[in-house]
Amino acid sequence: MHLPSDTICALATAPGVGAIAVLRISGTKTFDVLNTLCVDKKWGELDSHTTHFARVKRNDGSIVDEVLITLFRNPKSFTGEDTAEISCHGSLYIQQELLSMLLNAGCRLAQAGEFTQRAYLNGKMDLSQAEAVADLIASSSAAEHRLAMSQMRGGFSKEINDLRQQLIDFAALVELELDFSEEDVEFADRTQLKALIHTILALIEDLLSSFNYGNAVKSGVPVAIVGEPNVGKSTLLNALLRDDRAIVSDIAGTTRDTVEDEMVLGGYRFRFIDTAGLRQTEDSIEKMGIERSYAKASQAQIILLLIDAQSETPELLAERIEQLQQKSDIRSKTLIVVANKIDKTANASLDALRSVHPEIMGISAKNMQQIDLLEKALIACIENQPGSERDVVVTNVRHVEALKQTQSALLQALNGMDMRISGDFIAMDIRQALFHLGSITGAISVEDLLGSIFSRFCIGK
Amino acid sequence: MHLPSDTICALATAPGVGAIAVLRISGTKTFDVLNTLCVDKKWGELDSHTTHFARVKRNDGSIVDEVLITLFRNPKSFTGEDTAEISCHGSLYIQQELLSMLLNAGCRLAQAGEFTQRAYLNGKMDLSQAEAVADLIASSSAAEHRLAMSQMRGGFSKEINDLRQQLIDFAALVELELDFSEEDVEFADRTQLKALIHTILALIEDLLSSFNYGNAVKSGVPVAIVGEPNVGKSTLLNALLRDDRAIVSDIAGTTRDTVEDEMVLGGYRFRFIDTAGLRQTEDSIEKMGIERSYAKASQAQIILLLIDAQSETPELLAERIEQLQQKSDIRSKTLIVVANKIDKTANASLDALRSVHPEIMGISAKNMQQIDLLEKALIACIENQPGSERDVVVTNVRHVEALKQTQSALLQALNGMDMRISGDFIAMDIRQALFHLGSITGAISVEDLLGSIFSRFCIGK
Repeated sequence: MHLPSDTICALATAPGVGAIAVLRISGTKTFDVLNTLCVDKKWGELDSHTTHFARVKRNDGSIVDEVLITLFRNPKSFTGEDTAEISCHGSLYIQQELLSMLLNAGCRLAQAGEFTQRAYLNGKMDLSQAEAVADLIASSSAAEHRLAMSQMRGGFSKEINDLRQQLIDFAALVELELDFSEEDVEFADRTQLKALIHTILALIEDLLSSFNYGNAVKSGVPVAIVGEPNVGKSTLLNALLRDDRAIVSDIAGTTRDTVEDEMVLGGYRFRFIDTAGLRQTEDSIEKMGIERSYAKASQAQIILLLIDAQSETPELLAERIEQLQQKSDIRSKTLIVVANKIDKTANASLDALRSVHPEIMGISAKNMQQIDLLEKALIACIENQPGSERDVVVTNVRHVEALKQTQSALLQALNGMDMRISGDFIAMDIRQALFHLGSITGAISVEDLLGSIFSRFCIGK
Repeated sequence: MHLPSDTICALATAPGVGAIAVLRISGTKTFDVLNTLCVDKKWGELDSHTTHFARVKRNDGSIVDEVLITLFRNPKSFTGEDTAEISCHGSLYIQQELLSMLLNAGCRLAQAGEFTQRAYLNGKMDLSQAEAVADLIASSSAAEHRLAMSQMRGGFSKEINDLRQQLIDFAALVELELDFSEEDVEFADRTQLKALIHTILALIEDLLSSFNYGNAVKSGVPVAIVGEPNVGKSTLLNALLRDDRAIVSDIAGTTRDTVEDEMVLGGYRFRFIDTAGLRQTEDSIEKMGIERSYAKASQAQIILLLIDAQSETPELLAERIEQLQQKSDIRSKTLIVVANKIDKTANASLDALRSVHPEIMGISAKNMQQIDLLEKALIACIENQPGSERDVVVTNVRHVEALKQTQSALLQALNGMDMRISGDFIAMDIRQALFHLGSITGAISVEDLLGSIFSRFCIGK
């Protein structure tokens, strides 16, 4: 793998107007570029990790901006290269003008993720850590952030490397046998080796099963709200939203674009999917609408059946639940039945409904009654999934793929040993497993793979 | 005026997700706050203008982010106070979480412009310089940027302070007379003083007349395009836009929100206003539409009459121009007549049109013919305005108001001297003039005034 020799630059802060904006430069020519832009100082002679006031001037002497420049000397920088961060006034004109000047001074505009790619190439982090940087930047809930931070700090890599080390030790013994293949010896005790492979397979299984949890955390948990109009769906959403929103709107300038029915509860992101009512009907047009509702509901992980405690009868409720259970792709989902408007209902009628479905949660969305219990129930749906108790969770489809490939190669090795196949083939299977496991952290890397990973990044990172 | 004693914080970079985001803290408790967030270092003991890697941890030891913190020690900072900039990963979650932690650690969320207000209160800049910081951040064209930069660097303040100094010297002499009012002496030679006031008035007049230019630069120059459908208006706009757009789209991430008919030509921002056609008609509904077009055109500074060189006759053109001239609020505007589609027309027909209006510009928007000449004509309309040759230009309505008040007080003083009014009243007029002039740079400031100036800022500046 070639180390990059050119010098890259990019806007590192969010696009748009702000009080300040930060441009980042990294590469061997970083200080030369600064010498062109700000002639007052000898940038190559200044200490790492120091910040300097400077005037950026055009060739005609006119001032583009008064900026602060912070230097990071190779290897003590994010990328491991000489790096500078220019903090300028955050006008679009100045951002553009400075970027143009950097390009004229010999920088190249960075590709998305290229700074982090260089950090990886210079050995500052492994591949799964680098991927976590992108996840960290994209994270918008506490749980997402926690998983990305753990992965960036190497938690996941350590687990993978431990697995890998065990396999390498194993492989070494098998490969040793090959040197003595004429003599039909077995350095690697087959029984022991099988036990080891079983241990590793169990760990991989464990990691793979954490992906459901990891994916729910990373992509948000889809919740289909099934309920007729006027049962209080939007009041419920507003009631749930209250806590979340209060935090967001307190901090001016950081309010994210509001996705109407998406919210963070207990540190997890939930996406609420609206569906039409689900009643038995003979009307063919209404039937089509209902089929579409089922299709939507089948994409969810949780089905929240919202009913009006005032008007719902045990018969109606039984019918609704039965309808849901009839669909095989909905039957497997977690079902939460919520009876709204309990403030207007006698306890007896809720008890009657409970005879049909004992776990009905009674709430009043309008009066914020028992909303906290519903929140806890939603959160419990995620936290009861396998993996939620783990520090290290798989959140990345690429990692799932690699783990599955590893799994399949190991099963083949196991199978080979049962068939008392020759060491050559077993060694080949193990090498396959090592390759796939290594591709997660980049211990073995493929150029193509790199491109596809780093293009997910923001420019400037 | 009280110096602020609390510590403020804000997101200083543009809102949204970026590779990094920068949070700014300023105030006496800055280092205490850092000590709470990152316990690994003794922040109060580190040097100014140094940058440090740090882990921000919650009370339970969990890591919120790995950040870079740059310190600026009072008075060597933008605000003049102890200041820190935290450069974190640019996820919304981390931005919010860090801001929450800063608030819990004793910071207050900064008001818009409050960092710059502190810079002013701590004597780091005067009021007109502080205002220029907001203009600089908002600037989106080269000319806007140049004026804001000149004002921020004190060009305007110097001109105002020179005027003020002359007035102060003058006032001192007049006030001296008051001490000897019984004796009927005149320390201040009335003829000399009148000459001085006339000089100052001329300078104020000069500054005031630069406001048209300054305002055009700052707010963009409104150009009304008058022309019938199909004369090629949108082709013309695209042709003009070509240069501007090429620069913008080269630099990913800095592309501004496209305002369809706004563009930068020769460093100036132009706003193109679409109007309906302006033909004579007896149809009452069409007449209403035409009246509305006139109303729009009257808001413009330049009227660009676009005609189709193929179909236009001298009679039609004469009629159109006459119609425009009939309106008193349009007659005073700069009129540019542009004949499009000259690639499809014989020279003779253009010559015929020139008999009506000699300065017709012939272009082909489709073939990009002579678009550069039209650009130059548009730019010349701005650059021919008084003030364009000045380094110091008035761009701010508040400054215009203050200059007008100064002018009026000086005229009253002049009038008083002609009436041989007593020194008391002249001194009062001069003091009035000094007060208004001083309000520009904040030499005399009013708390109310400050609030209104700094609320125009971004939060975080």
